[in-house]
Amino acid sequence: MKKKSSTKDLNLSSNERLYLKNSSIFSPKRYSKSIPNGFKIYTFNSGFKKRLDDLLLIVFDEIINLSAVYSKTSMPSAPILWDKKYNKGKVKVLVVNSGNANAHTGKTGIKIINQYADFISKYIGCKKNEILVSSTGVIGEIFDSKMIINQVSKINQKSCGSLLEAAKAIMTTDTYPKVSTKTIKIKNNSFKIYGIAKGSGMINPKMGTMLVYIFIEAKLSKKLLTKLLRENIDDTFNSISTDGDTSTSDTLALFSLNIKKINFNFKNFQILNNKVLDIMKDLSLQVVKDGEGISKLVKLNIYKSRSKKQAIKVGFSIVNSPLVKTAISGEDANWGRIIAAIGKSQENIDQDKIKIFFGKNLVCYNGSINKKINLKKLDQYMKKNIIEISVFLNSGKINHTVYGNDLTYEYIRINSDYRS
Amino acid sequence: MKKKSSTKDLNLSSNERLYLKNSSIFSPKRYSKSIPNGFKIYTFNSGFKKRLDDLLLIVFDEIINLSAVYSKTSMPSAPILWDKKYNKGKVKVLVVNSGNANAHTGKTGIKIINQYADFISKYIGCKKNEILVSSTGVIGEIFDSKMIINQVSKINQKSCGSLLEAAKAIMTTDTYPKVSTKTIKIKNNSFKIYGIAKGSGMINPKMGTMLVYIFIEAKLSKKLLTKLLRENIDDTFNSISTDGDTSTSDTLALFSLNIKKINFNFKNFQILNNKVLDIMKDLSLQVVKDGEGISKLVKLNIYKSRSKKQAIKVGFSIVNSPLVKTAISGEDANWGRIIAAIGKSQENIDQDKIKIFFGKNLVCYNGSINKKINLKKLDQYMKKNIIEISVFLNSGKINHTVYGNDLTYEYIRINSDYRS
Repeated sequence: MKKKSSTKDLNLSSNERLYLKNSSIFSPKRYSKSIPNGFKIYTFNSGFKKRLDDLLLIVFDEIINLSAVYSKTSMPSAPILWDKKYNKGKVKVLVVNSGNANAHTGKTGIKIINQYADFISKYIGCKKNEILVSSTGVIGEIFDSKMIINQVSKINQKSCGSLLEAAKAIMTTDTYPKVSTKTIKIKNNSFKIYGIAKGSGMINPKMGTMLVYIFIEAKLSKKLLTKLLRENIDDTFNSISTDGDTSTSDTLALFSLNIKKINFNFKNFQILNNKVLDIMKDLSLQVVKDGEGISKLVKLNIYKSRSKKQAIKVGFSIVNSPLVKTAISGEDANWGRIIAAIGKSQENIDQDKIKIFFGKNLVCYNGSINKKINLKKLDQYMKKNIIEISVFLNSGKINHTVYGNDLTYEYIRINSDYRS
Repeated sequence: MKKKSSTKDLNLSSNERLYLKNSSIFSPKRYSKSIPNGFKIYTFNSGFKKRLDDLLLIVFDEIINLSAVYSKTSMPSAPILWDKKYNKGKVKVLVVNSGNANAHTGKTGIKIINQYADFISKYIGCKKNEILVSSTGVIGEIFDSKMIINQVSKINQKSCGSLLEAAKAIMTTDTYPKVSTKTIKIKNNSFKIYGIAKGSGMINPKMGTMLVYIFIEAKLSKKLLTKLLRENIDDTFNSISTDGDTSTSDTLALFSLNIKKINFNFKNFQILNNKVLDIMKDLSLQVVKDGEGISKLVKLNIYKSRSKKQAIKVGFSIVNSPLVKTAISGEDANWGRIIAAIGKSQENIDQDKIKIFFGKNLVCYNGSINKKINLKKLDQYMKKNIIEISVFLNSGKINHTVYGNDLTYEYIRINSDYRS
């Protein structure tokens, strides 16, 4: 396993550097500190984390449209239950805290949200159902709503923050903040899409993921926002996994800022759709590249599958296999474990037709080992930070790519001490 | 995480002690060296392992009945394909090698088996379809059938071995051999059941498990043998998991030695059935207690589930969750991760009705934390070697227990170096 990179190149305070001492080797080198249009960002330390910001408040300039997807878990957190109950696709304020997931907190968890949402609705001057709430962190611990309320009342004394600060305030075990900005041009209109995300462990999203917020500087109906989500989620957040564990709190929300008014006819919608795909792909890759304890990113291409469903099932069976993951951290091209993981999916696939490549190195075909493999070249390949594995199932015509990471000592360290 | 016990109490040679230096804390302290009735055991070092025995040959005194179940993988190994094709429930010889799984070896893998089976059938004097073959170890590597043939021809110079020697010869990453013997009394007839098993990693059996062979000193038809398997497999081998990875080679075979002739009427069959359950339970627990890198055994009771299917799905979702497993290795009663793992199963369960206990410590109920929990007592409990978790789903009337283990640095060490 590789050593982790230092974090000295990051744009971070010394406190943050301390916190992030085992930063992922995939940490971005540079961040923009730009302040977005259409909304104001406020971040606070409210006591969930020791010193770092742990509360994000986004106040939109006007009431705007949003569409959101949530975890498919059957144990949703209080914020997800609350949002699904109250929010009808209009939003004025987004409130996110990190360090406490407000999950499995029963009626008390809902009461806590009602308390701070009531305060915010009066303080900001909006309806309660124009607030969207999220929480991420430890499950099952109850907190005092005053932790949030006390901070919100300080808004007027605060200057507005950048997207980078927003991304930092929602981090938990993340080793770097996740921000993405894209610019779109439709005829003479140029506008931006911004997004932030958090996520590092408990990553095997089912429809949503961790916490992701994407803002489009153009007016869109809820229907179009939902369409943008549906078209792009399967190839982005639903194609990554760090540990096969689905969170209680996964939320992905897409906001339409009423800055540009554009006719989204078929052609213009396609331009927008492609850009939304770009930003969702970028953020989802940032999440998996910060997978807890990561030393290598795994890009797994499933080629010639019978269906997308089969490709996803086989793909996750491989990237979630602890035996495949440990082989990769050990820089061992142990393709036998990939075969076992394909078999575990119980999909009806003819093993004699399978071909597996590590990079461009063919390791098996015709149901058996490639005896002419150049082992020196293969060993060299396995030392890379990004391992690309291509599995040709040869059972159909569908291609699909999923992303995962390796399983390391560092993963065990992080997760056996998380609460202590 | 606890230190592993030394292996000095085991009945092992110094070579074996070296091999087993990181023995599971659950290693049995004593083994019987008894030699069974009804068959002869021969073990050899044929070169798959460096010094230790890696080939087991069992020659039955006569042609006997057997019934077997195999991995539900869609990538079965050559021995499983071969056994399913040829064996019709009668057996004279059982051949098992460890160190090479003969899996994903295509037509060559089948050819290898035909070569050594042809030799054995001539040498011993039986039909080819009266041979049962198994292999376990690395996937995808082709070997020379002479490695087996050369040993078989030495049988006459060899003295017969004990069940313990048989269990040792089929080990791979196992840190101790797995043997079980039970005695049954039916009226004036007393007879024995013996079993051996191997398995340590890639343990999430689907219908069979690793390699398990159980011998009954009584005459039974194939139909009754199959019934015994079907009645007991779900509560034993299909209720354990080490890493959620299903093997290409899982095989469980039940043999009827023609020693005692007993009328298995309803009552007598129940006596036998209970004893077969005992031995399968014992061997399956020995397998999970030797889970790769284990520092703690997890006994998970799912109570008041809607169905057995739901209990098994929720149970495996919990015991296979890397986040639950690392919390347990860190001696952290992180029940929030158990809630997340139940949710991940996507089973329709009312979270407000769930109760979770660690030992006798109630950690949550009514959808929320138990605020009166005695944390000192709970912390003390988490230091135990066996952690018993009881989850009351309160969605029905079915109870079911599954077994797993924690996830440790040692698991990573074993599996990132397995082939090097």
